[in-house]
Amino acid sequence: MAVHEELPADAGQDAINELQSIRQSIDNIDAALIHLLAERFKFTQSVGRLKAEHGLPPADPAREFLQIQRLRGLAEDARLDPAFAEKFLNFIIAEVIHHHEKIAGDTAGGRTIAPPAAAGPDDTAAPTA
Amino acid sequence: MAVHEELPADAGQDAINELQSIRQSIDNIDAALIHLLAERFKFTQSVGRLKAEHGLPPADPAREFLQIQRLRGLAEDARLDPAFAEKFLNFIIAEVIHHHEKIAGDTAGGRTIAPPAAAGPDDTAAPTA
Repeated sequence: MAVHEELPADAGQDAINELQSIRQSIDNIDAALIHLLAERFKFTQSVGRLKAEHGLPPADPAREFLQIQRLRGLAEDARLDPAFAEKFLNFIIAEVIHHHEKIAGDTAGGRTIAPPAAAGPDDTAAPTA
Repeated sequence: MAVHEELPADAGQDAINELQSIRQSIDNIDAALIHLLAERFKFTQSVGRLKAEHGLPPADPAREFLQIQRLRGLAEDARLDPAFAEKFLNFIIAEVIHHHEKIAGDTAGGRTIAPPAAAGPDDTAAPTA
């Protein structure tokens, strides 16, 4: 369901209709973004578990560099600011780290979850500790 | 094309294969996110132009409130942290404002683009000026 609200009565009806149509598209895109982000975090949590189980290093600067370069390239092709694409990846990374910190907290509480170091950010551009 | 790199030789081959498979999924999702974001910014720029043309107010707190509530609800259904969904919307909003500031700069340079006030953030949770 899209989000609608009242618009000024003095705007032309055609303009109001067009604005509502665009907003519905924005709302549809936002729903898709939220669902893709939810799926992405499921994958990064799988990566964290897998790395913990197999003693793989938490961060991988080579992959992180390639991820940034790739997203910047995709952004250019899509006429999106490459600097924004990089900021976006870093924003996501911060949340991945936040998830892993929560895992660390749960581990401290006695739950049998992988240790935080081994469940580090991965697939992020976070600096290697 | 997904982003691959060397992994430690002492990790099990099955683990490495699984990690590469998950990373390919992450890369696919990232490509989708970038393209959706590019499309979203096209729409917000259309909103900015439309509002400027019709003298509609740049910000709409009622819509902004509803957008946040809706995204939080979608996030809960998708098992994504609702607080993250709200942070994400605010992150996007900051970029929309940045776009509109650039339009303002272009206007100051003499190009025939809508004035910044009328091309304000809209469809964002930015405070009304």
